[in-house]
Amino acid sequence: MNGFQAGDAVMILLGRKRFVMRLQQGRLQHTHEGLIRHDELIGQPPGIKLTTHIGKPFVALRPSLHDLIMSIQRISQIIYPKELGYILLKLNVGPGARVAECGTGSGSLTLALAHMVRPSGRVYSYDKRADMIAVASKNLDNAGLLEHVEFRERDIEEGFVETDLDAVFLDVRTPWECLGQAWAALAEGGFLGAIVPTTNQVSELIAGLEARGFQDIEVCELLLRSYKPVAERLRPVDRMVAHTGFLIFARRLSDGVAPGDLGCASSLAEDETRDSLSLAGPIESADSQGV
Amino acid sequence: MNGFQAGDAVMILLGRKRFVMRLQQGRLQHTHEGLIRHDELIGQPPGIKLTTHIGKPFVALRPSLHDLIMSIQRISQIIYPKELGYILLKLNVGPGARVAECGTGSGSLTLALAHMVRPSGRVYSYDKRADMIAVASKNLDNAGLLEHVEFRERDIEEGFVETDLDAVFLDVRTPWECLGQAWAALAEGGFLGAIVPTTNQVSELIAGLEARGFQDIEVCELLLRSYKPVAERLRPVDRMVAHTGFLIFARRLSDGVAPGDLGCASSLAEDETRDSLSLAGPIESADSQGV
Amino acid sequence: MNGFQAGDAVMILLGRKRFVMRLQQGRLQHTHEGLIRHDELIGQPPGIKLTTHIGKPFVALRPSLHDLIMSIQRISQIIYPKELGYILLKLNVGPGARVAECGTGSGSLTLALAHMVRPSGRVYSYDKRADMIAVASKNLDNAGLLEHVEFRERDIEEGFVETDLDAVFLDVRTPWECLGQAWAALAEGGFLGAIVPTTNQVSELIAGLEARGFQDIEVCELLLRSYKPVAERLRPVDRMVAHTGFLIFARRLSDGVAPGDLGCASSLAEDETRDSLSLAGPIESADSQGV
Amino acid sequence: MNGFQAGDAVMILLGRKRFVMRLQQGRLQHTHEGLIRHDELIGQPPGIKLTTHIGKPFVALRPSLHDLIMSIQRISQIIYPKELGYILLKLNVGPGARVAECGTGSGSLTLALAHMVRPSGRVYSYDKRADMIAVASKNLDNAGLLEHVEFRERDIEEGFVETDLDAVFLDVRTPWECLGQAWAALAEGGFLGAIVPTTNQVSELIAGLEARGFQDIEVCELLLRSYKPVAERLRPVDRMVAHTGFLIFARRLSDGVAPGDLGCASSLAEDETRDSLSLAGPIESADSQGV
Repeated sequence: MNGFQAGDAVMILLGRKRFVMRLQQGRLQHTHEGLIRHDELIGQPPGIKLTTHIGKPFVALRPSLHDLIMSIQRISQIIYPKELGYILLKLNVGPGARVAECGTGSGSLTLALAHMVRPSGRVYSYDKRADMIAVASKNLDNAGLLEHVEFRERDIEEGFVETDLDAVFLDVRTPWECLGQAWAALAEGGFLGAIVPTTNQVSELIAGLEARGFQDIEVCELLLRSYKPVAERLRPVDRMVAHTGFLIFARRLSDGVAPGDLGCASSLAEDETRDSLSLAGPIESADSQGV
Repeated sequence: MNGFQAGDAVMILLGRKRFVMRLQQGRLQHTHEGLIRHDELIGQPPGIKLTTHIGKPFVALRPSLHDLIMSIQRISQIIYPKELGYILLKLNVGPGARVAECGTGSGSLTLALAHMVRPSGRVYSYDKRADMIAVASKNLDNAGLLEHVEFRERDIEEGFVETDLDAVFLDVRTPWECLGQAWAALAEGGFLGAIVPTTNQVSELIAGLEARGFQDIEVCELLLRSYKPVAERLRPVDRMVAHTGFLIFARRLSDGVAPGDLGCASSLAEDETRDSLSLAGPIESADSQGV
Repeated sequence: MNGFQAGDAVMILLGRKRFVMRLQQGRLQHTHEGLIRHDELIGQPPGIKLTTHIGKPFVALRPSLHDLIMSIQRISQIIYPKELGYILLKLNVGPGARVAECGTGSGSLTLALAHMVRPSGRVYSYDKRADMIAVASKNLDNAGLLEHVEFRERDIEEGFVETDLDAVFLDVRTPWECLGQAWAALAEGGFLGAIVPTTNQVSELIAGLEARGFQDIEVCELLLRSYKPVAERLRPVDRMVAHTGFLIFARRLSDGVAPGDLGCASSLAEDETRDSLSLAGPIESADSQGV
Repeated sequence: MNGFQAGDAVMILLGRKRFVMRLQQGRLQHTHEGLIRHDELIGQPPGIKLTTHIGKPFVALRPSLHDLIMSIQRISQIIYPKELGYILLKLNVGPGARVAECGTGSGSLTLALAHMVRPSGRVYSYDKRADMIAVASKNLDNAGLLEHVEFRERDIEEGFVETDLDAVFLDVRTPWECLGQAWAALAEGGFLGAIVPTTNQVSELIAGLEARGFQDIEVCELLLRSYKPVAERLRPVDRMVAHTGFLIFARRLSDGVAPGDLGCASSLAEDETRDSLSLAGPIESADSQGV
């Protein structure tokens, strides 16, 4: 990794605080422990230790995607890294993907998606609230990822503008009311994801997905348990986040595939696939040969 | 998404089984329910429904990264998607990243890394066992991701070949014995990750990380709880994976930064950062202004 | 503890098996490793090591309540010790209590209740299926606790025979249909508990409890995570029970207390009471003095 | 249940606060919402609604064991109901049992034990700190359970005074240093339990238990997940207690039983016994017959 350049996102570790800023020539960053001159950082290697104008030491790092997400400005409940990583894998997000989300919220998922679809993919982020889009834009800009996102201030009832999308994610209160729009926007075989906080919403969404013909439905939660990293007194931290939301995933199959055609409507959960999938694996049980 | 082409990875859903194969002109896939001709799939849209030569219906989909990982051939305990997604975020993996892992194992992390660093990044995967590398290579090839990976059959005691890496991940029995090698291979500010099954190993690794000067140490576990996706009888599945491993993360800072320079040696855990980070956020508490 | 006597429940550890039997003079126990003569055990101290008639060593212990529950014959899903202990505390079960349950099932809760209400309390166990009561009776008899229980083969629609009960527990499919009966059977201030497997049932039960005037409603789950007890390689076991059921608790207050009179309809959960309750504790915040 | 009598523990629900007090003739209870005259409560049925001297309504209930524990004065981390219930079952606590614990702490386990061993059993509670014993005594007295407990201000290095105990529980920093004392105090076949916060302590304790000849070692954690009890918006609470401690259980067998005699040194965990135990059950697989 080369030195910091103007436009880079930089994470500052200063005392017990850490925050992310984007380098700009000639700018000053005010902190609780004095000023940081952006110009002093430009050209320096990541990991450098410097001091503020009143002599307080700080370290400047390249933020990880995890750091970027945890440091965004929040005006709504965000989706956390523990869920974000799993969402990326389930929705098959990666370089080149075209993905839509609704709503934007504070932009934590937007940020993770933008990071992963670079450079040729694209994120379309819908929200009917202008204030949400304003904050999310700022957060994406601060992370240097704004160019990969198109924000759309629009009620999702009117549908997505895009079609043939690789994936759609719904983070709204009544996702079952957006399933027609999501179906229309998705490519055949495309991935749908959603997050809702209550079990009642999960039930309504499952019913809606089945009614609309989505298949391979999976419902799960992810729990992150942190430990105090002390070698001689290793133990879980006292308290943890017990709930952010239930994750629901499904697929839009080809229009010709009826529900039930797959034999089993729902996906095998991660903990049940261990044996079944290895038995069904391509190498062990299904030999290929040339004709 | 366009139609399937030769070289694409395709996931077949056939009865209660699902598996991934890579399309090749002129090939036949043997299954428990009859033959599938690859040629019949080439050109078809993902999500299509066809039949085997004995008339059994199957659906052909583009696999998600989650599908690819869950369907690899296993000759060792694999790292699961619930951990993989979080690892990607913590190690800042994304398009263009240069990442090394040791050991290769069955290649589940290799596959996730290769998917995410495309097209310009690179994965360096080390294992001293040739059989592991052989299986992982097959798995990567089957997923169409082999070109992004360089496998190295090599004892990690001799060190990594690469330097200035963005991230290094250790999935070995005694990761604390590889920390000098990891430090040498990492760029300043680079990310280290590891997974170990026992608490004793976690303690040894924390001690080793501190001794070697790594900072920002985090230890955590991720638990995935799946639900039976039935709208009127929603409930968690009966049994779950209770443990795959403990995840440990740390950063290599600049050589000039001494342990303790950061004020706090360890990272704030996800569940503790909610308030502290939003307070420290760039927009709320740290105003920038031009000079 | 004195030596084993006729009528005692004894746990036998034989090879990798363990089972519970009740001592009777002159009886023989057939096992997969030979015969055990009851008479050889009578008078011996718990913890003794003997051999079967073909020389296989076994150990005879007094079973714990946990052992008794885990060794009952099962013809239905049982309530597990992790839930049973918590139920006992929430329902205020203890020596002298009069408690009813519906349905009996295999009798695991019956057994725990009978153990704890001895010698002066009483358990009333309702089930409309004679086969359930037959198996549960056998299980209670085997544990030496049958005398503390009255089984009633009866449809709960007809109500409980008893009144003024200290607690009632419902383990039926539609507990919201038994709330009138439970209210009639409970003393003022009495405790209600229930277990159901699905979130839909939880919602229906909460609505029913509120409609019927029950207060102090609490909903929770208990998760037991076991570790492999190896000092140098301590780690959680690979798999665990992810779900047995949701526990719901409530109280029947005096007929004159309307819902809402308490200011807050629902109980503080265990994890929220830490500070609030210690502040409200009798010694710190509420001084007593004589007049 | 009859009306309240002098000497009874009463739980008062007043606004958003709840606390426990013990009724005494002629006493006044000061609260943040006015005075409560004990004499007004004596003779009233549990569940009654009254008002303070300034007209604030309150409800008076019999506290459950759970209520009693959650309302004790705390001068140390307490053991919570989720663990207490399981401890009672594993240690076979019940009416008539003779149990020792060390240390006393704030007395939450003491209280649960005293409640359950009534009327003929006895709890022996050791602590070397007089202030702990003073607070615990007050807590037990407030709950009306003091008569069943003997507190002993004593360093456990000097051993327990009692012998032939049914169970011993250790809640000290270095329980492995008390195992000789516990062995001496326990009856053959007696139960040992312990709670420690760190994994390092678990490892040391397992090693100590094996060295001392304890058998049937089990290590586990209990997690309580609470739900917001709202029928139409059912969801887990946001945050939960992630860790109070690891529970360790073992048995003292007869002096003649060597480690390993049982074939397997460690107990089957709850989640592994489902099948094995029902197969080994006395009724299904081991027929008894008279001679």
